[in-house]
Amino acid sequence: MDLPDDLRKTPPVHTWNPQRPSPMPSHRYRPAHERVAVPLADADRTWPSRRIERAPLWVPVDLRDGNQALSEPMDPVRKHKLFDLLVAMGYKEIEIGYPSASRADFDFVRRLATSGAVPDDVTTVVFTPARRELIERTFASVEGLPHTVVHLYTATAPVWRDVVLGRSRAEVHALIREAATDILRLAERRPDADIRFQFSPEVFNLTEPDFVLEICNGLTELWDASPDRPVIHNLPATVETATPNVYADQIEYLHRHLDRRDRVILSVHPHNDRGTGVACAELAVLAGAQRVEGCLFGNGERTGNVDLVTLALNLHTQGVDPMVDFSDIDAVREVVEHCNRLPVPVRHPYAGDLVHTAFSGTHQDAISKGFAEHARRAAEQGVSERELPWSVPYLPIDPADIGRSYEAVIRVNSQSGKGGIVYLLEQGYGIDLPRGMRPEFAKTVQRATDDSGREASAEELWELFRTTYLDTGTGGAVAVPWWETREVAPGEHESVCDIAVDGGPPARFKGAGNGPVAAFTAALAEAGIEVAVLSYFEHSTATGQGSPAVAYVECRIGPAVLWGAGQDTSVLTASVRAVLSAVNRAHQERR
Amino acid sequence: MDLPDDLRKTPPVHTWNPQRPSPMPSHRYRPAHERVAVPLADADRTWPSRRIERAPLWVPVDLRDGNQALSEPMDPVRKHKLFDLLVAMGYKEIEIGYPSASRADFDFVRRLATSGAVPDDVTTVVFTPARRELIERTFASVEGLPHTVVHLYTATAPVWRDVVLGRSRAEVHALIREAATDILRLAERRPDADIRFQFSPEVFNLTEPDFVLEICNGLTELWDASPDRPVIHNLPATVETATPNVYADQIEYLHRHLDRRDRVILSVHPHNDRGTGVACAELAVLAGAQRVEGCLFGNGERTGNVDLVTLALNLHTQGVDPMVDFSDIDAVREVVEHCNRLPVPVRHPYAGDLVHTAFSGTHQDAISKGFAEHARRAAEQGVSERELPWSVPYLPIDPADIGRSYEAVIRVNSQSGKGGIVYLLEQGYGIDLPRGMRPEFAKTVQRATDDSGREASAEELWELFRTTYLDTGTGGAVAVPWWETREVAPGEHESVCDIAVDGGPPARFKGAGNGPVAAFTAALAEAGIEVAVLSYFEHSTATGQGSPAVAYVECRIGPAVLWGAGQDTSVLTASVRAVLSAVNRAHQERR
Repeated sequence: MDLPDDLRKTPPVHTWNPQRPSPMPSHRYRPAHERVAVPLADADRTWPSRRIERAPLWVPVDLRDGNQALSEPMDPVRKHKLFDLLVAMGYKEIEIGYPSASRADFDFVRRLATSGAVPDDVTTVVFTPARRELIERTFASVEGLPHTVVHLYTATAPVWRDVVLGRSRAEVHALIREAATDILRLAERRPDADIRFQFSPEVFNLTEPDFVLEICNGLTELWDASPDRPVIHNLPATVETATPNVYADQIEYLHRHLDRRDRVILSVHPHNDRGTGVACAELAVLAGAQRVEGCLFGNGERTGNVDLVTLALNLHTQGVDPMVDFSDIDAVREVVEHCNRLPVPVRHPYAGDLVHTAFSGTHQDAISKGFAEHARRAAEQGVSERELPWSVPYLPIDPADIGRSYEAVIRVNSQSGKGGIVYLLEQGYGIDLPRGMRPEFAKTVQRATDDSGREASAEELWELFRTTYLDTGTGGAVAVPWWETREVAPGEHESVCDIAVDGGPPARFKGAGNGPVAAFTAALAEAGIEVAVLSYFEHSTATGQGSPAVAYVECRIGPAVLWGAGQDTSVLTASVRAVLSAVNRAHQERR
Repeated sequence: MDLPDDLRKTPPVHTWNPQRPSPMPSHRYRPAHERVAVPLADADRTWPSRRIERAPLWVPVDLRDGNQALSEPMDPVRKHKLFDLLVAMGYKEIEIGYPSASRADFDFVRRLATSGAVPDDVTTVVFTPARRELIERTFASVEGLPHTVVHLYTATAPVWRDVVLGRSRAEVHALIREAATDILRLAERRPDADIRFQFSPEVFNLTEPDFVLEICNGLTELWDASPDRPVIHNLPATVETATPNVYADQIEYLHRHLDRRDRVILSVHPHNDRGTGVACAELAVLAGAQRVEGCLFGNGERTGNVDLVTLALNLHTQGVDPMVDFSDIDAVREVVEHCNRLPVPVRHPYAGDLVHTAFSGTHQDAISKGFAEHARRAAEQGVSERELPWSVPYLPIDPADIGRSYEAVIRVNSQSGKGGIVYLLEQGYGIDLPRGMRPEFAKTVQRATDDSGREASAEELWELFRTTYLDTGTGGAVAVPWWETREVAPGEHESVCDIAVDGGPPARFKGAGNGPVAAFTAALAEAGIEVAVLSYFEHSTATGQGSPAVAYVECRIGPAVLWGAGQDTSVLTASVRAVLSAVNRAHQERR
């Protein structure tokens, strides 16, 4: 049934949704669609059907917008460190400061200009308000920089015009044109310098679209933009005020209506007040934006600027080259945390401490199977696992792509199932628990983590495995201080052993069978200990001669079916210990 | 010019965008649109033009999905505390656990069922996989709960079917129907209990839409849904894999094609792997979703579940009642941080420590003006500031709505301008700096913060004001150990004072003028100290008799124009000190 939406009845909320009005004074706020007119007709909207097929031009504004938002702004050493990081990662256009705002900012721009720290293929951007003396100081700061963008901003939204600037639309427009003319004049005095121009109508997303068009089109003409020397019109969502589709509509409207579109770089600058900065940037790129300003890990005023790390890696996981190097994300994070003195949250996409981790059992099991399948396919196709197309459940990115390791992926707590346990024991200790044994050991782990209420590390799992199985094979109520076994005829094995029960004196018993384990259990039977071995597994735990083996046996002992395990460099000793482990565990359970 | 998009040329990226290919192996990933078919025709897409006009049904899954993702799962005390918080906030449907997964979860559900902790208007949800013995254990856990939803989940996406379950589409479908039949049978055994049903096709966003429809429509029929007892079909973006518009398309497709739509509650469960969980939820609600599962502050596996706090407050700031009480967000945050043992990041929307803070000067200035305008309007209209419609620049929410205070809003560092300084001195110390004096003091502050590289607190600003102005009025090179003034005739004032310069012995001087300050400056002139007072301001710093006053004078002294300030309970003493402050500051500068 495909009916028009208004004909598709949905269950009336009130019958099954008893939510009650809250005491929040929501009536104080006007919805976004009453605050800003989006003149994009439905038929003109193309962005929801489009795809991002290449990276936009990224412009980190960490040294300006990000720095402004720190309780301790970066000192020159930290600023330089961050600038060098941005260059090393491959960013080619970098906003370096607001030189007229403080001596620190001015000095830093001079330092970059005079030290030769800016590679010739990197364009630097400096930010200035629309005031002549500040524009002049801005131009004074950039002397000597190879490629510069002078970035003029003015608030254009109604509330800002009325409350902050106290100027009419026409007055604000005049102010902007005057400043833009000053900028042009100062640039013309340096005919040899490569200076381009950028304008930001601040709080674009709350400004009347026709006013933005009027100003931007005027500047494109005034600044004499050409396809080879386009102007940048940067449209900030200075404060997020609507769902991200509204911003996309606004950007598409501008994209479709800006004059001389081939001479304009359409840029966006989203913030994150509603937690949708990344979505705004992505939908804006679908809508025609070619350039995105933001900060690494989303630093910036209040809730931050849009996060350039998430944006780039979102592209990467869609098969689109992000054009920026995140192959060692922890190194990037370390520098940024040092410079900003702010931590990256543990659940931050791609870079947080917990994001390549799975605690839940079903997730762990699926990831474990996914890794195995990935390895199998790589072997089958004869390619490296690092090259094979990625498709492991629950992991949207191969952690190795960003310099993280698989080892960190799985952790075990009381909510976890067998998958995580198996994975950690195998990765950490070479223990490959037989499938049939896993539920038994998982219960033991769950009891332990239920009791402790804490995560179990690989080491703690190993300790638990050791005390539960290996120790019961070497000590316990039933002890075998001496034993030997030999093949008396082809396929006929004999076992002789001293067996002591409950600390009593050992007595010697003999048994025979079609293998050493069968002969040993026959000897045990002579001593009155009935053990039926139901299944048996053994493997070495490392490569090379003399590496220890682990044996696992599933036994029926009286009414119980349970597992034992033993470890030794001798495969024979390991299996005898495994049987003893099962015997002693059964003995414990009977008590 | 409104041209079709493909006719609108944009500047060729390569001429101005020198970004270079990165070493990232992006070729390993397939774009979302190749991994999942979205059969929604452009003409059928209505969500981009729709608006959210009421809150969906919120379902916090903190006690299940959130708890699963903690390295230390909550103990029963913490679980109960979080449950009580959710109830107190107004959540009416709450997922309380995965009772068959661990003893801890089972016991907690029993505890809720037997303790009477669940109000009669709250529905609890329990989560179960599609296995008979686990379903039975789930039903055992909920005995005695007033209203229950049994939530069945199974992974349905191709990679999960192939790699994790090792089952075909038909086999997975059969598995689900079998489990759903078990659930129905067990519910029928308790005819008096209010038990409803929920199904989640896990990794819905990577599952073939026709397969989801086939399963969901089958269950709607099998479970005999009615408008009064609808089923819940919950469509999780278990791992985010595309831009949020793709998820919205998927949800709208289901919304339009689900059978018996009036008997189905369409629910979503977004995660945040691409940092767009909030956007996915909001666009999904536009697309027809009626119910949203998530966690407070976005806890959950990896990058977390969608954040219910941000979603609710995003609605609030659009004039839509969130139906949940966030009027004391810090109290909510404190409980959640205690229970999860994870901090809320400093830039988390609405709740982070830095999000109602502005460091940049232009922002501070605008906010300060916005508050003044807000107060003026409230007074004009005779309503409380807490009731007046909110429209302060840069603050998307009135911090008071969520129990935060204005005081925390503005902080001052070297990137700040006058606005923040003025605001903090006024709020903290009742100092209302004259407009003309602000640039001078702002430079002093900037020098200090440039040097320290640190934020200045209100207290530090006050210290700086005191040492710069007030102290120079009471001590310094020019001292007036004794003075008096009197009105010798109407409008004629005489000042007599002892003036000591540079530690020399005091000498007595006299002056006359049309006021005491003029008389005092005349006496200074007699002593060879020429001071022209250009402007003068004075105000009390608190209400009530005997509260100190602060006087400010702008003076020309030799070639310099500069300010002085003095404080005293006597308005006269304060103004004499202000003049002396200016004199001594000029004296300092000449050195």
